[in-house]
Amino acid sequence: MRPVAGVGMVGYAFMGRTHSQAWRNVDAFFDLPLRPAMVALAGRNPEATEQAAAKLGWAHAETDWKRLLDRDDVQIVDICTPGDSHAEIAVAALAAGKHVICEKPLANTVAEAEEMAAAARAAAGRGVRAMVAFNYRRVPAVALARRFVAEGKLGQIRHVRAQYLQDWIVDPDFPLVWRLQKDKAGSGALGDIGAHIIDTAQYVTGERLTGVSAMTETFVKERPLAAASSGLSAGSGTGTGPVTVDDAALFTARLTGGGLASFEATRFATGRKNALRIEINGSLGSLAFDFESMNELWFHDHTLDDAEAGFRRVLVTEPGHPYAGAWWPPGHGLGYEHAFTHEVKDFIEAIAAGTDPAPSFDDGLQVQRVLAAVEQSAADDSRFTPVEVS
Amino acid sequence: MRPVAGVGMVGYAFMGRTHSQAWRNVDAFFDLPLRPAMVALAGRNPEATEQAAAKLGWAHAETDWKRLLDRDDVQIVDICTPGDSHAEIAVAALAAGKHVICEKPLANTVAEAEEMAAAARAAAGRGVRAMVAFNYRRVPAVALARRFVAEGKLGQIRHVRAQYLQDWIVDPDFPLVWRLQKDKAGSGALGDIGAHIIDTAQYVTGERLTGVSAMTETFVKERPLAAASSGLSAGSGTGTGPVTVDDAALFTARLTGGGLASFEATRFATGRKNALRIEINGSLGSLAFDFESMNELWFHDHTLDDAEAGFRRVLVTEPGHPYAGAWWPPGHGLGYEHAFTHEVKDFIEAIAAGTDPAPSFDDGLQVQRVLAAVEQSAADDSRFTPVEVS
Amino acid sequence: MRPVAGVGMVGYAFMGRTHSQAWRNVDAFFDLPLRPAMVALAGRNPEATEQAAAKLGWAHAETDWKRLLDRDDVQIVDICTPGDSHAEIAVAALAAGKHVICEKPLANTVAEAEEMAAAARAAAGRGVRAMVAFNYRRVPAVALARRFVAEGKLGQIRHVRAQYLQDWIVDPDFPLVWRLQKDKAGSGALGDIGAHIIDTAQYVTGERLTGVSAMTETFVKERPLAAASSGLSAGSGTGTGPVTVDDAALFTARLTGGGLASFEATRFATGRKNALRIEINGSLGSLAFDFESMNELWFHDHTLDDAEAGFRRVLVTEPGHPYAGAWWPPGHGLGYEHAFTHEVKDFIEAIAAGTDPAPSFDDGLQVQRVLAAVEQSAADDSRFTPVEVS
Amino acid sequence: MRPVAGVGMVGYAFMGRTHSQAWRNVDAFFDLPLRPAMVALAGRNPEATEQAAAKLGWAHAETDWKRLLDRDDVQIVDICTPGDSHAEIAVAALAAGKHVICEKPLANTVAEAEEMAAAARAAAGRGVRAMVAFNYRRVPAVALARRFVAEGKLGQIRHVRAQYLQDWIVDPDFPLVWRLQKDKAGSGALGDIGAHIIDTAQYVTGERLTGVSAMTETFVKERPLAAASSGLSAGSGTGTGPVTVDDAALFTARLTGGGLASFEATRFATGRKNALRIEINGSLGSLAFDFESMNELWFHDHTLDDAEAGFRRVLVTEPGHPYAGAWWPPGHGLGYEHAFTHEVKDFIEAIAAGTDPAPSFDDGLQVQRVLAAVEQSAADDSRFTPVEVS
Repeated sequence: MRPVAGVGMVGYAFMGRTHSQAWRNVDAFFDLPLRPAMVALAGRNPEATEQAAAKLGWAHAETDWKRLLDRDDVQIVDICTPGDSHAEIAVAALAAGKHVICEKPLANTVAEAEEMAAAARAAAGRGVRAMVAFNYRRVPAVALARRFVAEGKLGQIRHVRAQYLQDWIVDPDFPLVWRLQKDKAGSGALGDIGAHIIDTAQYVTGERLTGVSAMTETFVKERPLAAASSGLSAGSGTGTGPVTVDDAALFTARLTGGGLASFEATRFATGRKNALRIEINGSLGSLAFDFESMNELWFHDHTLDDAEAGFRRVLVTEPGHPYAGAWWPPGHGLGYEHAFTHEVKDFIEAIAAGTDPAPSFDDGLQVQRVLAAVEQSAADDSRFTPVEVS
Repeated sequence: MRPVAGVGMVGYAFMGRTHSQAWRNVDAFFDLPLRPAMVALAGRNPEATEQAAAKLGWAHAETDWKRLLDRDDVQIVDICTPGDSHAEIAVAALAAGKHVICEKPLANTVAEAEEMAAAARAAAGRGVRAMVAFNYRRVPAVALARRFVAEGKLGQIRHVRAQYLQDWIVDPDFPLVWRLQKDKAGSGALGDIGAHIIDTAQYVTGERLTGVSAMTETFVKERPLAAASSGLSAGSGTGTGPVTVDDAALFTARLTGGGLASFEATRFATGRKNALRIEINGSLGSLAFDFESMNELWFHDHTLDDAEAGFRRVLVTEPGHPYAGAWWPPGHGLGYEHAFTHEVKDFIEAIAAGTDPAPSFDDGLQVQRVLAAVEQSAADDSRFTPVEVS
Repeated sequence: MRPVAGVGMVGYAFMGRTHSQAWRNVDAFFDLPLRPAMVALAGRNPEATEQAAAKLGWAHAETDWKRLLDRDDVQIVDICTPGDSHAEIAVAALAAGKHVICEKPLANTVAEAEEMAAAARAAAGRGVRAMVAFNYRRVPAVALARRFVAEGKLGQIRHVRAQYLQDWIVDPDFPLVWRLQKDKAGSGALGDIGAHIIDTAQYVTGERLTGVSAMTETFVKERPLAAASSGLSAGSGTGTGPVTVDDAALFTARLTGGGLASFEATRFATGRKNALRIEINGSLGSLAFDFESMNELWFHDHTLDDAEAGFRRVLVTEPGHPYAGAWWPPGHGLGYEHAFTHEVKDFIEAIAAGTDPAPSFDDGLQVQRVLAAVEQSAADDSRFTPVEVS
Repeated sequence: MRPVAGVGMVGYAFMGRTHSQAWRNVDAFFDLPLRPAMVALAGRNPEATEQAAAKLGWAHAETDWKRLLDRDDVQIVDICTPGDSHAEIAVAALAAGKHVICEKPLANTVAEAEEMAAAARAAAGRGVRAMVAFNYRRVPAVALARRFVAEGKLGQIRHVRAQYLQDWIVDPDFPLVWRLQKDKAGSGALGDIGAHIIDTAQYVTGERLTGVSAMTETFVKERPLAAASSGLSAGSGTGTGPVTVDDAALFTARLTGGGLASFEATRFATGRKNALRIEINGSLGSLAFDFESMNELWFHDHTLDDAEAGFRRVLVTEPGHPYAGAWWPPGHGLGYEHAFTHEVKDFIEAIAAGTDPAPSFDDGLQVQRVLAAVEQSAADDSRFTPVEVS
């Protein structure tokens, strides 16, 4: 019999639902060294938390996340709350000896992220693990992209162009949900979806951004107040309030390997729903990916004869592809949620193996530093702003 | 508290895994009138069945499917075995008062399918429900295609071109698994994947095939014996044996509404992994779908001004799309397995509502008749062979 | 100084315009052994022919095509008339010692095509050349497809699926132009566009169709009379008349190499404008092409590792691609008309070299036999109808 | 009889060939008020110029461009030389009363461009016209994009992302052709292809860039000397020399309407051959275009119901589309060169009508100012650099 890894999760909104789906199913598809148990869900509203726990498959409901730290049957704390509470929960959980997986962005400020990274480093010395949940790394096509780069298929990286395009707040009557409030969300498109493309670009290339030149904008400066606090939707409230985060952020960057990169995160790309796109050009080949077609990776092998070269659509559903073999036969694609399943699978394996999972809190801190540099550059006439590379 | 609907499943190979995934998750995403319980899994090999039950989340394991019929905690029997056992299990289960969901094709012969359909009709009189599991109907894009046709967006249907293209047996050394043996599988590509495009074409158009002209072929006539019986893969055995089913089947057809259709099912379309494709042209518009891009439906509205008309890629992930709203925000695509979750959701709702679920066993029988007509035409110089339309 | 090859062309409608464009430009892009001269254009209406000659760049206008045969400054006769006049003109021109390039389909009946092919064979003995103008062979992507097959990149051909989809007569008020009249056009979609996909399939695979099973349909049986005779458009007339050709033709076929093929030619594929599509699956690889994206050839190399294989988009604009190097730098695509330029380039080179150009009138005859077999099978309950393979 | 417009062209390399093709064919497809005559081609090398004139269809060859200004049979001077000679030729030609069409970028410096724009303004007062040849404006899909924006289909423009991606100098052994030398070319990817996307973005949106933040890079700093001076290719020479222009330029920008834009011009995007791409997001809809699929414009109409909205592929070959009706039936696409034909057609019509053609030299000057601002910002830590908007 395998040992059990009890999980306590904080938050049950969008991210709570995806993480629950991961914990509920990971054991049916992967052969894990520990058996995950969905022990307890923590939330502030007792009734809503009870209902969510029942719906999502958690055995218990807690109304204070600190209670999770007291439970002996919880070994893992999974943080799915808005960014303003990440640091407090994560630091306390690690101190309590719980392994921590924390949603991205790691924090709302560099200071918080530094505190969390320091806590994670200290915890690692005691065998306690911490991971930041950049789920897109675990999309099979993205993991394959990383493998291709690591194998040298692209040669020297010259260009990265990364975009994360959504359109859910194009309507000026869309309400002022917490994701549009700086005190809760830290930033807007930048931290929410820009953080993903920063991590994806650094992960796939294996390089770091050395500095950025940025521009941000808030197109709709005032919005109707939301009736209830929610990240993505809300009933109707009364009156309006100021949008205190960016609607869109554009920045260019330089990479440690000498390449140039461009980034764009926006919630105003009408018709683009969840277009996390990245294209990478190297001296030997290129890659392109768009999450709206998440089971495809486009690869150009420049070493082939020109007469037969071209971008090829690799359907990333083969047994030889990352994660894919655990699921269905070739051509039977995966969905958004599967990356979360892969995430907790890798996290459990790292815990059992006593190794540091990736992305680490240090990786999360590095992304946080880029986010801060973007804001600084945007406030300083787009001047190139270096990022400390750790 | 909602009443419980206990499920007993027979078979735990490819389809058993997809159905388990559906039963395990449906309640977390949909608000169901009955709470599904994964009561028991039946299989012949005790040890393997035990392991599968544990892995897939079934509470009990049985080594005889008839035991499921005796259990009071089982109200639903889910048949995931090869086609040669469907009739026996389904008829017995319905007689025992169990609701039945049965994998496709409904049976290996028209005679078996007729017996099953008669049993289903009789059972319906007693409030016992039967459904054949043509999962692709529940892919949101396919369900949306049906909706568009039903709303009249296509006008009169002129053309259907349907293909189901795979390539998993292109290698002549691929072994003689049960799906390549007529006594187990009934037919080859025709019944396995051809059945899907027949059902999909009839479902989306709301019409029936009135006759077919067909051609079939077995490209590789002898294959290595498989070490162990499996549908999709096998270890190495010794010696070779004859392939007794079709590798590919092509047929043209006429539709009840006067349109023309073409169908192709093959396991030799190198590079196509699971390309269930359908394109429909009507007097007012057209639709195109390819399962390899399963979250997209392409729609051409011919009533628009020519200068701005064109096939549009509808990303079928909006709240207003079939099933999609239960999952994730727009642009966060679903995968292969979700159609099965939708299937059991609709089945449970039909049971609770006391209505007949679709596709019914009569629908399955109709597909079986088309399959038989295809084989008859192929054996008779491709002569046009009428299909009885019920 | 190069010798001059004087050209006399018959007909100045759609095909007359494309051929004029070819003759006008071929010398500016290719280094030809003969200098083509646009000597004379023949048409029945004196005024219209004069105007067309001036517009299209022909030095003289003739009102009787037979006058072209008398001219010493004409060495090449280019036939761009409807199919009912091909045989008479071609046979006379060859007898007069003129090289002949004739639009497709070669004729309206097998008997006419046989007469023409015999005349071409006889003429070849006298150094007089004949070519049938299947222009799509000279699209660079199609020529590259042929090269890939000839090089063995596809292995044994298992499947061909060819479609030629248009939608210009979906509107039942579209008038009864000559292309919808059997006495002028021979057949409808079948001979007009079906002939193209038959030739393309045979050319690219290097195989022949050995027999067909077919189905045809005329969806709109009566149409408004056209005010003036034209193939593609017309002013308004009075009254209606019967459509005497097929609107759509579907057929399956067997290939000399043992593969299966399907063909569809229709003018009722709403939203598809000129979608000549062909997909070929072989034991080692696959190809796909759609003329609506005419500068792309999709190639799947099945000998690659599964983890990096996929259909690749070869942009057929490289110097190493057929014809492409004569035009613009890579990525600067060609258009519809360029295939005609390539056609006359190859024709001129064959004339100068004293070799038989391809496709020959025998090739045109073979296509004609397939067209006849399709009509025969369609009239005989879709029964498989062998095609004589020469 | 229409009056004749005699044309004298300077230069016969890549652009000379495209312009010749335009002059040779424009009259066969469009009904022009003036009949263009290809009078004389000017080049420095007598023999090569003679040969080019014969090949391309020019009646005479001149070895000094100034001779064109003396010819009474020349009314139009077409400048197809590298940027360093544009100002001298254009100013002189306008002074001589010749209408001038000049390749882009208008000049190598803002000062030259200002001189030219002033000359053009002065000439206009005398009925003499000047046009800068941003050919991509006349691709039907780009012209249609402009029409859609002008009709209000996009609403308020929020985002532009424009890229021009090529890969022809990825190989470090590619020689030091004139396009890689600052004294001849002015700049590298920036002026050569960056100029195109600046013009395209401004043209399609109808807005202007108000300032930029830029980053440029030269990846390969030393290259083999070219044997002979050419822009795109060269034989082998001896030794190496420094690349004095940018290989890639990235910049972000703000638009007069409040939107944000990003631009990237590079010759190091491996596998991208001539990918001029632009995507525009507005409050009511979006557009996307990629020149590698030049006959397609993608349009998203955000005012449709979400359930049926999506990016639609408008095949820009309909009679109702800009320029398309003059050519072939729907679905029969155009190629790269056709935009040049449209360009001279519009130029001739403007001359005959006595109106100023677009893009004017002032438009070319505006692009030049953006190019200068990009270089200035890149040299100043990417600091936002305003552009004077005229």
